[in-house]
Amino acid sequence: MWQLYQFPLCPFSRKVRLLMSEKGIGYDLVRENPWEMRDEFLTMNPTGRTPTMVHDERKLVLSDSRAICEYLEETEEKTPMLGGTAAYRAETRRLVAWADEHFYGDVVAPLLHERMTKRLVTRQPPEARILREAMRRANTHLDYIDYLIDHRSWLAGATLSLADLATAAQISVADYLGGIDWAGHEQTKGWYSVFKSRPSFRPLLSERMEVIKPPAHYDQVDF
Amino acid sequence: MWQLYQFPLCPFSRKVRLLMSEKGIGYDLVRENPWEMRDEFLTMNPTGRTPTMVHDERKLVLSDSRAICEYLEETEEKTPMLGGTAAYRAETRRLVAWADEHFYGDVVAPLLHERMTKRLVTRQPPEARILREAMRRANTHLDYIDYLIDHRSWLAGATLSLADLATAAQISVADYLGGIDWAGHEQTKGWYSVFKSRPSFRPLLSERMEVIKPPAHYDQVDF
Repeated sequence: MWQLYQFPLCPFSRKVRLLMSEKGIGYDLVRENPWEMRDEFLTMNPTGRTPTMVHDERKLVLSDSRAICEYLEETEEKTPMLGGTAAYRAETRRLVAWADEHFYGDVVAPLLHERMTKRLVTRQPPEARILREAMRRANTHLDYIDYLIDHRSWLAGATLSLADLATAAQISVADYLGGIDWAGHEQTKGWYSVFKSRPSFRPLLSERMEVIKPPAHYDQVDF
Repeated sequence: MWQLYQFPLCPFSRKVRLLMSEKGIGYDLVRENPWEMRDEFLTMNPTGRTPTMVHDERKLVLSDSRAICEYLEETEEKTPMLGGTAAYRAETRRLVAWADEHFYGDVVAPLLHERMTKRLVTRQPPEARILREAMRRANTHLDYIDYLIDHRSWLAGATLSLADLATAAQISVADYLGGIDWAGHEQTKGWYSVFKSRPSFRPLLSERMEVIKPPAHYDQVDF
């Protein structure tokens, strides 16, 4: 059985969890706060980042969420999320990178810092200017998702893929932290609403991160 | 034929070029300065990042360096750089992510900003404090490479892989910008010296980026 080291608002752990649930792979959650920099955790993964996955029977320690997803795709054929032609897979991976680097760096990372790290770790108030800028960028990125959904059934094309899971994982954390203004993004809203009702997504939406409360619409399929 | 949009000191373009040369895939270089944010380039790749690859006959535009490398691995079997078991591939991809995100973020990105962007774009002097911090972090990361080479023939294990190409690409840009102090890193130095003599690496070492000059040892195999 896999042990997944993570914390509830880690978007990369959410991506891995969505993939495992869609594929029907079992796992136990282990709570890890990467900001505590525990020695035992740094020994497993020198970068100190979540998610990190351990499989005792296979004597495996995996880290980096994209490496983990590729491993799960290669070892569990059920419900492929990186399927299709080489070109389709390249488009899927391009969008995963877009979610993991651009959406995360522009939107989720500053929201997590201002609304989670400052609250739980450094005990400072969030900076309104940074929150406004993150929301402005979220709006631009949602415009891009609107554009994709205008032209395709799912983000990478005709089929549900890791691109959808990665993007939904990032959006879910941004939405939890109050960083998404859904007005004017009907296409993205429709796509995300379908996602919210998937069995793989329900457990994530029911979890809470200590004292940090999500907005009322966060776990509702109609929002 | 592939057209590769890049600039000489882009470490991600260097990784893709090393992979293509090792596999014997031909390409034309197209110079692109991402900081100019050309409309035509942003139409090809909305993130505006290099490398971006175009193949007219296949009607393909690829971006994100990891997605590009996976595509090249899947479509060109010669000289595999992501081979071995699923676990070995996961280890290779973990180290590629380490080079692309940690070595780049801690070392190469600040060096590029201080020594290239400020020189060519904003016409400001570099900040000594930031350069010192990047060099300090480079030293810590070279300790980690020393440790890997103490235990393995190549970074991911017994065979040359994309982990070596990605790491050598980042180190080569840091070294060009004077950010590497090689003293005390005999293992990494030995590994990198072997790399420098590979035919795939020689063209990169002979290129220069406008007015920015590398240190004398930069293109020497014995350094």
